Amino acid sequence: MQSSAQQVYFLSNGTAITAETLGLSLLAQFPDCQFQTRTIPFIDTLEKAHKVSNEINRGSGNGNNQMPIVICTMGDADLMQIISQSRALMIDPFGEILPRLEKVLSAQHHEPGQSHRTVNPSVYDSRIDAIDYAMVHDDGGKTQNYNEADIILIGVSRSGKTPSCLYLALQFGIKAANYPITEEDMEFEQLPKPIRAFKPQLYGLTTDLNRLVKIRQERRPNSRYSSSKQCRYELKAVEEMYQRHNIRYINTSEMSVEEISARIIRDNGLHRIELP
Amino acid sequence: MQSSAQQVYFLSNGTAITAETLGLSLLAQFPDCQFQTRTIPFIDTLEKAHKVSNEINRGSGNGNNQMPIVICTMGDADLMQIISQSRALMIDPFGEILPRLEKVLSAQHHEPGQSHRTVNPSVYDSRIDAIDYAMVHDDGGKTQNYNEADIILIGVSRSGKTPSCLYLALQFGIKAANYPITEEDMEFEQLPKPIRAFKPQLYGLTTDLNRLVKIRQERRPNSRYSSSKQCRYELKAVEEMYQRHNIRYINTSEMSVEEISARIIRDNGLHRIELP
Repeated sequence: MQSSAQQVYFLSNGTAITAETLGLSLLAQFPDCQFQTRTIPFIDTLEKAHKVSNEINRGSGNGNNQMPIVICTMGDADLMQIISQSRALMIDPFGEILPRLEKVLSAQHHEPGQSHRTVNPSVYDSRIDAIDYAMVHDDGGKTQNYNEADIILIGVSRSGKTPSCLYLALQFGIKAANYPITEEDMEFEQLPKPIRAFKPQLYGLTTDLNRLVKIRQERRPNSRYSSSKQCRYELKAVEEMYQRHNIRYINTSEMSVEEISARIIRDNGLHRIELP
Repeated sequence: MQSSAQQVYFLSNGTAITAETLGLSLLAQFPDCQFQTRTIPFIDTLEKAHKVSNEINRGSGNGNNQMPIVICTMGDADLMQIISQSRALMIDPFGEILPRLEKVLSAQHHEPGQSHRTVNPSVYDSRIDAIDYAMVHDDGGKTQNYNEADIILIGVSRSGKTPSCLYLALQFGIKAANYPITEEDMEFEQLPKPIRAFKPQLYGLTTDLNRLVKIRQERRPNSRYSSSKQCRYELKAVEEMYQRHNIRYINTSEMSVEEISARIIRDNGLHRIELP
């Protein structure tokens, strides 16, 4: 029954993405602690709120002398009221911050109980367009319509192009294509033909040798493709290509997809849509 | 020089995703206000912090009598110190919440100045695997390996399958395939052959008639595919299929990709990885 991990709940009457994003960032400040997290979204009735509160109380009474932590973003005061009576360290960012915003905005926030979720159709359509674009223009699949691209990521196989393009599309509605630099492309002084006319949109990815070998080994173990020699050759060639043509690039080895994407946006001054 | 939109900054020494996510949720509580938002990530030197602070001050002094709002998640006390001296309503969730967490955790959070970002390689690999899986198994592209799927989304063309699968993969490391239900599939009593053996993993999407017509019109205007008659037929047939085979489903019309994904996870009790 003993548990050394600290129990943490991320709760909301909506998707709980805000509670979870904020919560994980906060917990990341305590790298030496162990956490067991649980996300519970859509707590949108009094009954569900009572049920969750009971669950928290059972956990905190369960021979466990660690107080659970609850991070809860509720758009409803009645539901928050129920959750906040649980035996836990209660973190209620909305409750703490909204009154201060109200003062500056001279506006009341919406009536409790009313959902704040609204899907903006034009934002939704921009995202879908961007996702369609990324899917069709993934991995050099289609090289027409590069003139429509906000950004074209280039790099060797497995340097992070696809996840970055998808994240840029999904999260920010940015039209991102990607083109793989192959061994054949590396033999020439010029940029590969399909991307040659689109230099302003090009952005290079590179990675560390060990990381690339490891990722490629998982795909095709003991192959030429995943050998140190081949990976070293490709990385050197592609970095020389970036430098020769003055193409900006980053090393993605130590970066999350979120960080790669945020850097691409910043480095290229890209315009992003705002999400709900 | 007049500006009725309230200026809001989302700032961080990292990607600023936390500041932005929390900030947009807070602003969504004020549906009648106009906001102009700006996200500035990677404020990771004293020089950059001073530059941003000056920019905020210029905005607030610019004949604009509205106080700017700053939502700032800084993993560094010295940088926060500089930002917090700007003329703005300063919201510093870390500064407000971390001391309370420290008490419960009996732990100091890391030294200021140290980055809290750490990329967990196994989490990264799970995401990449899930993204690879989603790409290969998109739109019925490959119907082998459905036994590896955590979830298989089904639905008519343009009901939201692809964005949901990609989001599930990117955000939660969930292996999500999707299979389009075609007109041909609708003529039979049985489920389409490729998905027949995987009923526990199936989850249906549907949407409102008007929404489907609109989305299809943008793709193929004035076609049979986008006609009201055809869309009505397909939606009716697919919903009957879900009911006949006891397949859970949701109507995605009013939902963001985030909400669709969160509901799929909840309804199917899916296990998700935790992101940095």
